[in-house]
Amino acid sequence: MSKIAADLKDHLDGEFPLVGATSTRSTVTIGDVVIGERDFVVIAGPCAVETRDQIETTARWIRQHGARILRGGAFKPRTSPYSFQGLGEEGVELLRRASLKAGVPFVTEVLAPSDIELLAPRVDAFQVGTRNMHNFALLDALGRQDKPVVLKRGFGATLREWILAAEHVARGGNDRIVLCERGIRSFGEETRFVLDLGGALWVRERTRLPVIVDPSHATGTPSLVGPLCRAALAAGLDGVMIEVHPDPSTALSDGDQALEFGAFAELMEQLGPIATAVGRGLG
Amino acid sequence: MSKIAADLKDHLDGEFPLVGATSTRSTVTIGDVVIGERDFVVIAGPCAVETRDQIETTARWIRQHGARILRGGAFKPRTSPYSFQGLGEEGVELLRRASLKAGVPFVTEVLAPSDIELLAPRVDAFQVGTRNMHNFALLDALGRQDKPVVLKRGFGATLREWILAAEHVARGGNDRIVLCERGIRSFGEETRFVLDLGGALWVRERTRLPVIVDPSHATGTPSLVGPLCRAALAAGLDGVMIEVHPDPSTALSDGDQALEFGAFAELMEQLGPIATAVGRGLG
Amino acid sequence: MSKIAADLKDHLDGEFPLVGATSTRSTVTIGDVVIGERDFVVIAGPCAVETRDQIETTARWIRQHGARILRGGAFKPRTSPYSFQGLGEEGVELLRRASLKAGVPFVTEVLAPSDIELLAPRVDAFQVGTRNMHNFALLDALGRQDKPVVLKRGFGATLREWILAAEHVARGGNDRIVLCERGIRSFGEETRFVLDLGGALWVRERTRLPVIVDPSHATGTPSLVGPLCRAALAAGLDGVMIEVHPDPSTALSDGDQALEFGAFAELMEQLGPIATAVGRGLG
Amino acid sequence: MSKIAADLKDHLDGEFPLVGATSTRSTVTIGDVVIGERDFVVIAGPCAVETRDQIETTARWIRQHGARILRGGAFKPRTSPYSFQGLGEEGVELLRRASLKAGVPFVTEVLAPSDIELLAPRVDAFQVGTRNMHNFALLDALGRQDKPVVLKRGFGATLREWILAAEHVARGGNDRIVLCERGIRSFGEETRFVLDLGGALWVRERTRLPVIVDPSHATGTPSLVGPLCRAALAAGLDGVMIEVHPDPSTALSDGDQALEFGAFAELMEQLGPIATAVGRGLG
Repeated sequence: MSKIAADLKDHLDGEFPLVGATSTRSTVTIGDVVIGERDFVVIAGPCAVETRDQIETTARWIRQHGARILRGGAFKPRTSPYSFQGLGEEGVELLRRASLKAGVPFVTEVLAPSDIELLAPRVDAFQVGTRNMHNFALLDALGRQDKPVVLKRGFGATLREWILAAEHVARGGNDRIVLCERGIRSFGEETRFVLDLGGALWVRERTRLPVIVDPSHATGTPSLVGPLCRAALAAGLDGVMIEVHPDPSTALSDGDQALEFGAFAELMEQLGPIATAVGRGLG
Repeated sequence: MSKIAADLKDHLDGEFPLVGATSTRSTVTIGDVVIGERDFVVIAGPCAVETRDQIETTARWIRQHGARILRGGAFKPRTSPYSFQGLGEEGVELLRRASLKAGVPFVTEVLAPSDIELLAPRVDAFQVGTRNMHNFALLDALGRQDKPVVLKRGFGATLREWILAAEHVARGGNDRIVLCERGIRSFGEETRFVLDLGGALWVRERTRLPVIVDPSHATGTPSLVGPLCRAALAAGLDGVMIEVHPDPSTALSDGDQALEFGAFAELMEQLGPIATAVGRGLG
Repeated sequence: MSKIAADLKDHLDGEFPLVGATSTRSTVTIGDVVIGERDFVVIAGPCAVETRDQIETTARWIRQHGARILRGGAFKPRTSPYSFQGLGEEGVELLRRASLKAGVPFVTEVLAPSDIELLAPRVDAFQVGTRNMHNFALLDALGRQDKPVVLKRGFGATLREWILAAEHVARGGNDRIVLCERGIRSFGEETRFVLDLGGALWVRERTRLPVIVDPSHATGTPSLVGPLCRAALAAGLDGVMIEVHPDPSTALSDGDQALEFGAFAELMEQLGPIATAVGRGLG
Repeated sequence: MSKIAADLKDHLDGEFPLVGATSTRSTVTIGDVVIGERDFVVIAGPCAVETRDQIETTARWIRQHGARILRGGAFKPRTSPYSFQGLGEEGVELLRRASLKAGVPFVTEVLAPSDIELLAPRVDAFQVGTRNMHNFALLDALGRQDKPVVLKRGFGATLREWILAAEHVARGGNDRIVLCERGIRSFGEETRFVLDLGGALWVRERTRLPVIVDPSHATGTPSLVGPLCRAALAAGLDGVMIEVHPDPSTALSDGDQALEFGAFAELMEQLGPIATAVGRGLG
């Protein structure tokens, strides 16, 4: 390591002592899937678990077409108390069965510290949603257990604040953290949020953690999801998390941004040659 | 009520059924202080409780000069896990004693649902900080107890999201909610945040709740706090929450934005004539 | 001046050599109206000049109720080339006649350096619109003539960039500049822009120039205009620029944000007692 | 075309009659280089032309390594009037000679309508910078000549406003327009701007114009430029514009964001396999 690089490293270590950049990058294993190594990992599934059939069909489809991890919301953090709030524990059970049957691990969001003990033995990984990135009680509690944590960036959070949220988790003893950029608030009205791909890359330079992006929530526009997944792969990030639904038009939550099965299969086919071109695999 | 006003009201009731605008505004009583009536209520105190002397001196000073409610942080939501995290329960106890001795009620922030039961009998009002506005577990728990809640706007939250956070609290049964605008994120670097005074007024039109502003956190600049308090009063809002510290240069948290005692006394003198001009009192 | 104040002044002089803060503030005279002294100056009129009757009726009304300067657009910078583009030279002529008959000077926007020579003898002051704040060719040309310039802040410009735009004008020899904050872009969708009152105050501290605000364009919401004008007065700014139209529902441009005549008269009555309370006049 | 696609097309045609999406995309030819067809076009060069040696060395290097068009600023729109303002006409002459010697066409920024006539015969394409995207006098004048226009997005402009700026140019008769996303303002402070790759894709769906991105200005961080160029290529955009300088540490303008020669050569090598993977060429 050159003198300049060493100095830089020291400085960064000072700012982010537990998750800051080190000479080797970390990997995080969810189920049997390693994130942060050679493979570009696709996490896919519906915004919310709705029925047994919906989640099992989806799990099977995404697995057949190359996704490695299932996603699905059971406890939903809804801006309005009058929107669908998710199936809760029953939803987690549906996810677990679908995951086992399809042979893919799954990640699901947790909203409250008090739910962690119940859920930890039943999930493969926890997700902290964008609205809870600064929920320090939740971050601290997730640091005191050992299931991996997918930590989404707050849509109003700076890059340093996002890394410091990871420090909160790591300080409790759990550094199995995957960072996920999911779009930030901006003045535009044409897309739901703005995917900060440059910010995701900046964070990957300054931490040892894997970094993925979620273009579904970022754009709210299915036609932009595929191109942005290809972009994330070519740019050198570690994976993507996207929404896939058997029938987006009937989805109870965020259906307008989910990919249909056909579009998902097509995207996976596009990723293959790019992965080869940049020396990555898809698993 | 005119036909147009009635139609408007119906529409708004639909969007925010529990806290939306009604023909009469709500008031919220903290200790013996009524917010949302004729008086413009000044809430003042340090960012963080540090010592018994610091908080008692401050409580006495702000009371003598016209503030009606004491503020102070005991459980601090710090972006970095390596910053001062507050005195916790001991801090609440110091606040309570200072409050009783000076004869002013106090408000303090709560970070986790699990702290509410312990704190509820000991505080006059809870504050939900900007980073927890979307912490639905916390909002729901605060809805199930009956101490008033000062609900700060998330610095990345839209006005509707802020009102819907109040709906979350109200749905649990507690509608003693004061909304507090504390500055939003923007592209500028010259002030810490941007105080959205127009947004605070917009929210006051669409809800029945009292609305106040916090220009200390919004600007991070003591010289702008006084002018913006005068602005909030002239604009018709219900109060302000500001930081006052006996010696800002030694403060453990956000000292650079707190008013010194002299500046606070001067501000209170400026508010008097404006209150008279707009038909309000200062209590 | 104290040592600290002197040091601060030196530093600021370095950053903004021509318009930076000095021991005395500057005043700018438009027609016979002085901006930046004791009086809080109200500038009012329609977004666009439409007809002779419209502009003359408005000029008379605003003058009778205490406004000191007429505003109106003849050359309109429209985002879409398919919107009404203004009456051009004919509009300026209508403005000039209305101004003379009512006995109020007027300000109107200029879009291109090539229009300045023609317009300079016919207008009392030029306005640079928010979309041209970084149009350096225009700023330089306005610096080489001597009519006052109302320089609006770019809705995406930082406070320093806004002051530096004033430096561009001043460098040409013309320092008769009034700064006007008119709302900045933000993530919210409930108001058109966010009025950065704190930013306007920050700029007033760091320059010697008068600073006013335009709450009509900032909020796009007539009911918020009055409260924000009262706020600007109480906060210590030098004036406001607002939109008034005899029949907003038929306006060709931005009608939905203009005040009706009655609302304007009511606002002017509200400003009187506040001006007295803060030691200002309304002229 | 399906019924839905036809309806969509009609709707979009209505909003952007001249540049809106049509069944075939447009191409724009600069010199002998076609943008908007199969090839992904790399435009490279220094922020500002400084010396004959600097620009000729750069032109030769970028050409040898696969860039197709030279960029360089002669008339610089500087926020501060006290920064280096560019070499003006002399700079354009240096660009022209370097371009001819290296055999690459060039694009350079124009700031004022009055400069167009002089420059049009001497440049291969004009650039409208981010600060002039809403300078309607400039847009109109560029519409009345026939050299291609690279139209950068205003850093505070919505996607629709950007497309409408292109309509302004096209309305004058010149539809040889390349749209360039160059980063938007956001609340973060870690990168200079945020590259809105999703927005660029959105605009490419809704217009028939080629769309490129400028990751150098967007991020201000050389290490992020390469990954974002790879991302733009994989996502399906039409090219990139990046800053390359023989010795960034001595650059008179924006040196800290320029790529060194070695880094540029390395980037071009990385682009090759990705281009093949997505069925594009590099020319």
